[in-house]
Amino acid sequence: MRVIGIDPGLTRCGIGIVDGTVGKPPRLVAVGVVRTPAALDVARRLVALEEGLVGWFDEYQPEAVAIERVFAQHNLNSVMDTAQAAGVAALTAARRGLPVAFHTPSEVKAAVTGSGSADKAQVTLMVTRILKLTEAPRPADAADALAIAVTHVWRGSGTNRYAAAVAAAKGKR
Amino acid sequence: MRVIGIDPGLTRCGIGIVDGTVGKPPRLVAVGVVRTPAALDVARRLVALEEGLVGWFDEYQPEAVAIERVFAQHNLNSVMDTAQAAGVAALTAARRGLPVAFHTPSEVKAAVTGSGSADKAQVTLMVTRILKLTEAPRPADAADALAIAVTHVWRGSGTNRYAAAVAAAKGKR
Repeated sequence: MRVIGIDPGLTRCGIGIVDGTVGKPPRLVAVGVVRTPAALDVARRLVALEEGLVGWFDEYQPEAVAIERVFAQHNLNSVMDTAQAAGVAALTAARRGLPVAFHTPSEVKAAVTGSGSADKAQVTLMVTRILKLTEAPRPADAADALAIAVTHVWRGSGTNRYAAAVAAAKGKR
Repeated sequence: MRVIGIDPGLTRCGIGIVDGTVGKPPRLVAVGVVRTPAALDVARRLVALEEGLVGWFDEYQPEAVAIERVFAQHNLNSVMDTAQAAGVAALTAARRGLPVAFHTPSEVKAAVTGSGSADKAQVTLMVTRILKLTEAPRPADAADALAIAVTHVWRGSGTNRYAAAVAAAKGKR
Protein backbone atom coordinates (compact mmCIF):
# COMPACT_ATOMS: atom_id res chain seq x y z
CA MET A 1 0.00 0.00 0.00
CA ARG A 2 1.34 3.42 -0.95
CA VAL A 3 0.58 6.07 1.67
CA ILE A 4 1.06 9.81 1.38
CA GLY A 5 1.56 11.52 4.73
CA ILE A 6 0.74 15.22 4.86
CA ASP A 7 1.86 17.66 7.57
CA PRO A 8 -0.48 20.53 6.66
CA GLY A 9 0.69 24.13 6.48
CA LEU A 10 0.78 27.16 4.22
CA THR A 11 4.43 28.15 4.59
CA ARG A 12 5.68 24.57 4.26
CA CYS A 13 3.30 21.63 3.81
CA GLY A 14 5.29 18.44 4.47
CA ILE A 15 4.85 15.52 2.06
CA GLY A 16 6.13 12.02 2.77
CA ILE A 17 5.32 8.99 0.65
CA VAL A 18 6.07 5.41 1.71
CA ASP A 19 5.24 1.95 0.47
CA GLY A 20 4.30 -0.44 3.24
CA THR A 21 2.76 -3.86 3.69
CA VAL A 22 2.16 -6.04 6.73
CA GLY A 23 5.32 -7.71 8.00
CA LYS A 24 7.75 -5.73 5.85
CA PRO A 25 9.61 -2.56 6.78
CA PRO A 26 8.11 0.54 5.11
CA ARG A 27 10.12 1.93 2.20
CA LEU A 28 10.69 5.59 1.27
CA VAL A 29 9.18 6.59 -2.08
CA ALA A 30 9.49 10.38 -2.00
CA VAL A 31 9.69 13.26 0.44
CA GLY A 32 9.47 17.03 0.15
CA VAL A 33 7.40 20.10 0.89
CA VAL A 34 4.88 22.29 -0.90
CA ARG A 35 5.62 25.95 -0.20
CA THR A 36 3.21 28.80 -0.88
CA PRO A 37 4.28 32.44 -1.18
CA ALA A 38 3.72 34.47 2.02
CA ALA A 39 3.06 37.50 -0.20
CA LEU A 40 -0.25 36.00 -1.35
CA ASP A 41 -3.42 36.20 0.72
CA VAL A 42 -4.63 33.03 2.46
CA ALA A 43 -7.17 32.13 -0.23
CA ARG A 44 -4.54 32.34 -3.00
CA ARG A 45 -2.10 30.34 -0.89
CA LEU A 46 -4.75 27.61 -0.56
CA VAL A 47 -5.05 27.51 -4.36
CA ALA A 48 -1.25 27.23 -4.67
CA LEU A 49 -1.27 24.46 -2.05
CA GLU A 50 -3.97 22.58 -3.92
CA GLU A 51 -1.95 22.82 -7.14
CA GLY A 52 1.16 21.56 -5.37
CA LEU A 53 -0.69 18.65 -3.77
CA VAL A 54 -2.31 17.64 -7.06
CA GLY A 55 1.20 17.47 -8.54
CA TRP A 56 2.35 15.05 -5.82
CA PHE A 57 -0.81 12.93 -6.10
CA ASP A 58 -0.51 12.76 -9.90
CA GLU A 59 3.15 11.81 -9.84
CA TYR A 60 3.09 9.20 -7.06
CA GLN A 61 -0.50 7.87 -7.17
CA PRO A 62 -0.91 7.13 -3.44
CA GLU A 63 -3.62 4.65 -2.40
CA ALA A 64 -4.25 6.14 1.03
CA VAL A 65 -3.85 9.56 2.62
CA ALA A 66 -2.86 10.35 6.22
CA ILE A 67 -3.06 13.92 7.47
CA GLU A 68 -1.85 15.28 10.80
CA ARG A 69 -4.82 16.41 12.84
CA VAL A 70 -4.60 20.06 13.79
CA PHE A 71 -5.12 21.15 17.39
CA ALA A 72 -6.02 24.57 18.67
CA GLN A 73 -3.62 24.80 21.60
CA HIS A 74 -0.91 26.86 19.87
CA ASN A 75 -0.89 30.22 18.11
CA LEU A 76 -4.52 30.77 17.15
CA ASN A 77 -4.02 32.53 13.83
CA SER A 78 -1.51 30.06 12.47
CA VAL A 79 -3.66 27.15 13.71
CA MET A 80 -6.58 28.42 11.66
CA ASP A 81 -4.35 28.70 8.58
CA THR A 82 -3.09 25.19 9.24
CA ALA A 83 -6.64 23.84 9.65
CA GLN A 84 -7.63 25.46 6.36
CA ALA A 85 -4.60 23.83 4.71
CA ALA A 86 -5.61 20.46 6.24
CA GLY A 87 -9.10 20.96 4.79
CA VAL A 88 -7.67 21.54 1.32
CA ALA A 89 -5.46 18.44 1.67
CA ALA A 90 -8.46 16.31 2.75
CA LEU A 91 -10.55 17.73 -0.08
CA THR A 92 -7.84 17.06 -2.69
CA ALA A 93 -7.56 13.45 -1.50
CA ALA A 94 -11.28 12.73 -1.14
CA ARG A 95 -12.04 14.21 -4.55
CA ARG A 96 -9.86 11.45 -6.02
CA GLY A 97 -11.81 8.83 -4.07
CA LEU A 98 -8.90 8.07 -1.75
CA PRO A 99 -9.43 7.06 1.89
CA VAL A 100 -8.37 9.88 4.24
CA ALA A 101 -7.33 9.39 7.87
CA PHE A 102 -6.28 11.95 10.47
CA HIS A 103 -3.69 11.09 13.10
CA THR A 104 -2.91 13.28 16.09
CA PRO A 105 0.65 14.50 16.71
CA SER A 106 0.88 12.32 19.84
CA GLU A 107 -0.30 9.21 17.94
CA VAL A 108 2.40 9.84 15.36
CA LYS A 109 5.12 10.45 17.96
CA ALA A 110 4.08 7.34 19.91
CA ALA A 111 4.02 5.19 16.78
CA VAL A 112 7.51 6.08 15.55
CA THR A 113 9.38 6.78 18.82
CA GLY A 114 7.37 4.89 21.46
CA SER A 115 6.62 8.15 23.30
CA GLY A 116 3.68 10.49 22.64
CA SER A 117 5.73 13.41 23.95
CA ALA A 118 8.85 12.92 21.79
CA ASP A 119 10.38 16.06 20.29
CA LYS A 120 10.93 16.82 16.61
CA ALA A 121 14.58 15.69 16.69
CA GLN A 122 13.59 12.26 18.06
CA VAL A 123 10.86 11.86 15.43
CA THR A 124 13.32 12.76 12.66
CA LEU A 125 15.93 10.37 14.05
CA MET A 126 13.48 7.46 14.26
CA VAL A 127 12.04 8.10 10.78
CA THR A 128 15.59 8.10 9.42
CA ARG A 129 16.24 4.73 11.06
CA ILE A 130 12.88 3.13 10.23
CA LEU A 131 13.20 3.99 6.55
CA LYS A 132 16.96 3.17 6.56
CA LEU A 133 17.86 6.57 5.12
CA THR A 134 21.49 7.63 4.87
CA GLU A 135 20.64 11.14 6.10
CA ALA A 136 17.77 12.82 7.95
CA PRO A 137 14.98 14.18 5.74
CA ARG A 138 14.92 18.00 5.67
CA PRO A 139 13.11 20.22 6.51
CA ALA A 140 11.44 18.96 9.73
CA ASP A 141 7.98 19.22 8.12
CA ALA A 142 9.06 16.64 5.54
CA ALA A 143 10.31 14.26 8.27
CA ASP A 144 7.01 14.74 10.12
CA ALA A 145 5.08 13.86 6.97
CA LEU A 146 7.08 10.62 6.65
CA ALA A 147 6.32 9.85 10.31
CA ILE A 148 2.60 10.34 9.59
CA ALA A 149 2.77 7.99 6.61
CA VAL A 150 4.69 5.34 8.61
CA THR A 151 2.15 5.65 11.44
CA HIS A 152 -0.65 5.11 8.97
CA VAL A 153 0.96 2.01 7.49
CA TRP A 154 1.42 0.53 10.95
CA ARG A 155 -2.01 1.48 12.27
CA GLY A 156 -3.64 0.60 8.97
CA SER A 157 -2.14 -2.86 8.90
CA GLY A 158 -3.38 -3.37 12.46
CA THR A 159 -6.88 -2.47 11.35
CA ASN A 160 -6.58 -4.68 8.31
CA ARG A 161 -5.42 -7.62 10.39
CA TYR A 162 -8.42 -7.12 12.67
CA ALA A 163 -10.80 -6.77 9.73
CA ALA A 164 -9.28 -9.90 8.16
CA ALA A 165 -9.76 -11.84 11.41
CA VAL A 166 -13.40 -10.70 11.62
CA ALA A 167 -13.99 -11.63 7.99
CA ALA A 168 -12.35 -15.02 8.53
CA ALA A 169 -14.48 -15.65 11.64
CA LYS A 170 -17.63 -14.73 9.72
CA GLY A 171 -16.65 -17.04 6.87
CA LYS A 172 -16.42 -19.94 9.36
CA ARG A 173 -19.99 -19.54 10.59
CA MET B 1 -21.26 44.65 -6.72
CA ARG B 2 -22.63 41.18 -6.05
CA VAL B 3 -21.27 39.70 -2.81
CA ILE B 4 -21.64 36.15 -1.55
CA GLY B 5 -21.40 35.87 2.23
CA ILE B 6 -20.43 32.47 3.60
CA ASP B 7 -20.89 31.28 7.19
CA PRO B 8 -18.66 28.20 7.01
CA GLY B 9 -19.69 24.85 8.44
CA LEU B 10 -20.11 21.19 7.57
CA THR B 11 -23.58 20.56 8.98
CA ARG B 12 -25.00 23.79 7.56
CA CYS B 13 -22.87 26.23 5.58
CA GLY B 14 -24.82 29.51 5.36
CA ILE B 15 -24.97 31.26 1.98
CA GLY B 16 -26.24 34.81 1.54
CA ILE B 17 -25.96 36.78 -1.69
CA VAL B 18 -26.64 40.50 -1.94
CA ASP B 19 -26.23 43.20 -4.56
CA GLY B 20 -24.88 46.43 -3.14
CA THR B 21 -23.46 49.71 -4.35
CA VAL B 22 -22.37 52.87 -2.58
CA GLY B 23 -25.30 55.04 -1.46
CA LYS B 24 -28.02 52.46 -2.14
CA PRO B 25 -29.48 49.91 0.28
CA PRO B 26 -28.20 46.37 -0.32
CA ARG B 27 -30.67 44.05 -2.04
CA LEU B 28 -31.27 40.34 -1.38
CA VAL B 29 -30.39 38.09 -4.32
CA ALA B 30 -30.53 34.64 -2.73
CA VAL B 31 -30.14 32.92 0.60
CA GLY B 32 -29.83 29.32 1.75
CA VAL B 33 -27.52 26.68 3.16
CA VAL B 34 -25.31 23.89 1.88
CA ARG B 35 -25.76 20.81 4.05
CA THR B 36 -23.43 17.83 4.06
CA PRO B 37 -24.39 14.39 5.39
CA ALA B 38 -23.14 13.72 8.94
CA ALA B 39 -22.81 10.05 7.96
CA LEU B 40 -19.85 10.86 5.69
CA ASP B 41 -16.33 11.35 7.03
CA VAL B 42 -14.92 14.88 7.14
CA ALA B 43 -12.99 14.58 3.87
CA ARG B 44 -16.12 13.45 1.95
CA ARG B 45 -18.16 16.19 3.60
CA LEU B 46 -15.61 18.73 2.33
CA VAL B 47 -16.07 17.37 -1.19
CA ALA B 48 -19.87 17.65 -0.83
CA LEU B 49 -19.44 21.22 0.47
CA GLU B 50 -17.22 22.13 -2.48
CA GLU B 51 -19.83 20.77 -4.90
CA GLY B 52 -22.58 22.72 -3.15
CA LEU B 53 -20.57 25.94 -3.19
CA VAL B 54 -19.66 25.57 -6.85
CA GLY B 55 -23.41 25.29 -7.57
CA TRP B 56 -24.09 28.61 -5.81
CA PHE B 57 -21.13 30.34 -7.50
CA ASP B 58 -22.18 29.05 -10.93
CA GLU B 59 -25.79 30.11 -10.53
CA TYR B 60 -25.30 33.57 -9.02
CA GLN B 61 -21.85 34.62 -10.30
CA PRO B 62 -20.76 36.70 -7.31
CA GLU B 63 -18.01 39.30 -7.84
CA ALA B 64 -16.66 39.21 -4.29
CA VAL B 65 -16.60 36.67 -1.48
CA ALA B 66 -16.83 37.35 2.27
CA ILE B 67 -16.25 34.51 4.73
CA GLU B 68 -16.73 34.58 8.48
CA ARG B 69 -13.38 34.21 10.18
CA VAL B 70 -13.25 31.20 12.46
CA PHE B 71 -11.98 31.57 16.02
CA ALA B 72 -10.70 28.85 18.29
CA GLN B 73 -12.44 29.86 21.51
CA HIS B 74 -15.36 27.43 21.28
CA ASN B 75 -15.62 23.64 20.95
CA LEU B 76 -12.23 22.62 19.58
CA ASN B 77 -13.29 19.74 17.36
CA SER B 78 -16.14 21.58 15.70
CA VAL B 79 -13.90 24.65 15.27
CA MET B 80 -11.38 22.58 13.33
CA ASP B 81 -14.14 21.23 11.09
CA THR B 82 -15.40 24.78 10.60
CA ALA B 83 -11.90 26.04 9.76
CA GLN B 84 -11.51 23.24 7.20
CA ALA B 85 -14.87 24.24 5.69
CA ALA B 86 -13.70 27.88 5.59
CA GLY B 87 -10.56 26.74 3.78
CA VAL B 88 -12.62 24.94 1.15
CA ALA B 89 -14.82 28.03 0.73
CA ALA B 90 -11.78 30.29 0.30
CA LEU B 91 -10.22 27.82 -2.15
CA THR B 92 -13.41 27.55 -4.21
CA ALA B 93 -13.60 31.34 -4.44
CA ALA B 94 -9.92 32.00 -5.14
CA ARG B 95 -9.80 29.30 -7.80
CA ARG B 96 -12.33 31.40 -9.76
CA GLY B 97 -10.12 34.48 -9.36
CA LEU B 98 -12.56 36.19 -6.98
CA PRO B 99 -11.38 38.49 -4.18
CA VAL B 100 -11.84 36.82 -0.78
CA ALA B 101 -12.17 38.69 2.51
CA PHE B 102 -12.58 37.36 6.05
CA HIS B 103 -14.65 39.26 8.60
CA THR B 104 -14.74 38.41 12.29
CA PRO B 105 -18.06 37.65 14.01
CA SER B 106 -17.77 40.87 16.05
CA GLU B 107 -17.10 42.96 12.93
CA VAL B 108 -20.23 41.50 11.36
CA LYS B 109 -22.37 42.03 14.46
CA ALA B 110 -21.10 45.59 14.85
CA ALA B 111 -21.73 46.40 11.18
CA VAL B 112 -25.36 45.24 11.10
CA THR B 113 -26.52 45.90 14.69
CA GLY B 114 -24.14 48.59 15.97
CA SER B 115 -22.89 46.23 18.71
CA GLY B 116 -20.05 43.73 18.45
CA SER B 117 -21.69 41.60 21.14
CA ALA B 118 -25.18 41.34 19.61
CA ASP B 119 -26.84 37.93 19.75
CA LYS B 120 -28.06 35.84 16.81
CA ALA B 121 -31.66 37.05 17.16
CA GLN B 122 -30.57 40.69 16.90
CA VAL B 123 -28.41 39.96 13.84
CA THR B 124 -31.33 38.16 12.17
CA LEU B 125 -33.72 41.02 13.01
CA MET B 126 -31.39 43.68 11.61
CA VAL B 127 -30.63 41.70 8.44
CA THR B 128 -34.37 41.31 7.89
CA ARG B 129 -34.82 45.07 8.22
CA ILE B 130 -31.75 46.13 6.21
CA LEU B 131 -32.77 43.92 3.28
CA LYS B 132 -36.49 44.83 3.71
CA LEU B 133 -37.51 41.18 3.88
CA THR B 134 -41.08 40.22 4.75
CA GLU B 135 -39.85 37.44 7.04
CA ALA B 136 -36.62 36.48 8.78
CA PRO B 137 -34.24 34.27 6.76
CA ARG B 138 -34.05 30.71 8.15
CA PRO B 139 -32.00 28.93 9.41
CA ALA B 140 -29.81 31.26 11.50
CA ASP B 141 -26.72 30.27 9.47
CA ALA B 142 -28.39 31.71 6.37
CA ALA B 143 -29.19 34.98 8.19
CA ASP B 144 -25.55 35.12 9.39
CA ALA B 145 -24.32 34.66 5.83
CA LEU B 146 -26.47 37.61 4.69
CA ALA B 147 -25.05 39.69 7.56
CA ILE B 148 -21.51 38.83 6.38
CA ALA B 149 -22.38 39.88 2.82
CA VAL B 150 -23.97 43.15 3.98
CA THR B 151 -20.92 43.85 6.17
CA HIS B 152 -18.67 43.32 3.19
CA VAL B 153 -20.68 45.68 0.98
CA TRP B 154 -20.53 48.37 3.64
CA ARG B 155 -16.89 47.90 4.53
CA GLY B 156 -15.97 47.49 0.88
CA SER B 157 -17.68 50.69 -0.15
CA GLY B 158 -15.99 52.48 2.76
CA THR B 159 -12.63 51.30 1.46
CA ASN B 160 -13.55 52.30 -2.05
CA ARG B 161 -14.60 55.77 -0.95
CA TYR B 162 -11.28 56.18 0.86
CA ALA B 163 -9.35 54.88 -2.14
CA ALA B 164 -11.32 57.23 -4.41
CA ALA B 165 -10.52 60.19 -2.14
CA VAL B 166 -6.82 59.31 -2.11
CA ALA B 167 -6.83 58.94 -5.89
CA ALA B 168 -8.64 62.27 -6.29
CA ALA B 169 -6.16 64.00 -3.95
CA LYS B 170 -3.23 62.58 -5.93
CA GLY B 171 -4.81 63.75 -9.18
CA LYS B 172 -4.93 67.33 -7.85
CA ARG B 173 -1.19 67.51 -7.11
